[in-house]
Amino acid sequence: MPDAERRKEILSRFLKEVWTDGDADAAERYIAPSYTIRHDPGDPWDGKLLDLEGYKERVRISRAPFPDQRFEVQELFADGDAVVVTWLWSAPHLGEIPSFPASGKTIRMSGATVYYFDGDRLTGHWQITDRLGVYRQLSSP
Amino acid sequence: MPDAERRKEILSRFLKEVWTDGDADAAERYIAPSYTIRHDPGDPWDGKLLDLEGYKERVRISRAPFPDQRFEVQELFADGDAVVVTWLWSAPHLGEIPSFPASGKTIRMSGATVYYFDGDRLTGHWQITDRLGVYRQLSSP
Repeated sequence: MPDAERRKEILSRFLKEVWTDGDADAAERYIAPSYTIRHDPGDPWDGKLLDLEGYKERVRISRAPFPDQRFEVQELFADGDAVVVTWLWSAPHLGEIPSFPASGKTIRMSGATVYYFDGDRLTGHWQITDRLGVYRQLSSP
Repeated sequence: MPDAERRKEILSRFLKEVWTDGDADAAERYIAPSYTIRHDPGDPWDGKLLDLEGYKERVRISRAPFPDQRFEVQELFADGDAVVVTWLWSAPHLGEIPSFPASGKTIRMSGATVYYFDGDRLTGHWQITDRLGVYRQLSSP
């Protein structure tokens, strides 16, 4: 299988297993020894270099208020050492996040993420998410 | 020149001429007869199908509060009929937008946009921008 198609499959499995299903330990099969969050405005780990344990911690902390979240891949684009994924996300809001106690609301978000590969391992990402959309859903009565 | 490289060049020129330099009429050289805004949360034209005049109008109205804006391309990724661009944007805020009169502040934003091609023409986009970052800059004292 060509690199581009294989990496798209790897990325789809990674998003499902680690983020949708919440298996933080599965990150061991996908994340390189050093993972750089190159750009991710609003993410507490923006700009940070993470090792595998740091990445797993990020998964656990990020998912805690939204344990039943689901990433739905829209499209995948491979070029060079990168795969770009556009995605929709939804989750019931079940735990506190800064300024917002658990509301039980189903929150919807969309985003676009560039994942960088070394071989079949992820070395980092550059991401934009529609944070204002989330903020407005959380703020509405 | 392969399609992928030529389309990256076309997209870079389009962003500079139409959006950074503000030459709405230059859109005639880039936009297909039908242009679909597939996904662009917060954009007043989200979901709309535009003809060339509609696209030019969008450029003029969107740029009016930010006439000196500048798009800085970070990276370009080509796959299939699409080119994805990650970008930084900055502009002095010189005209009113809803809830915010002209502030003179330099506003910074980042985003990721999938542009779809038919031949060398753009037929639409799927975009996420960091709207919350902009909102916070406008809201800060």
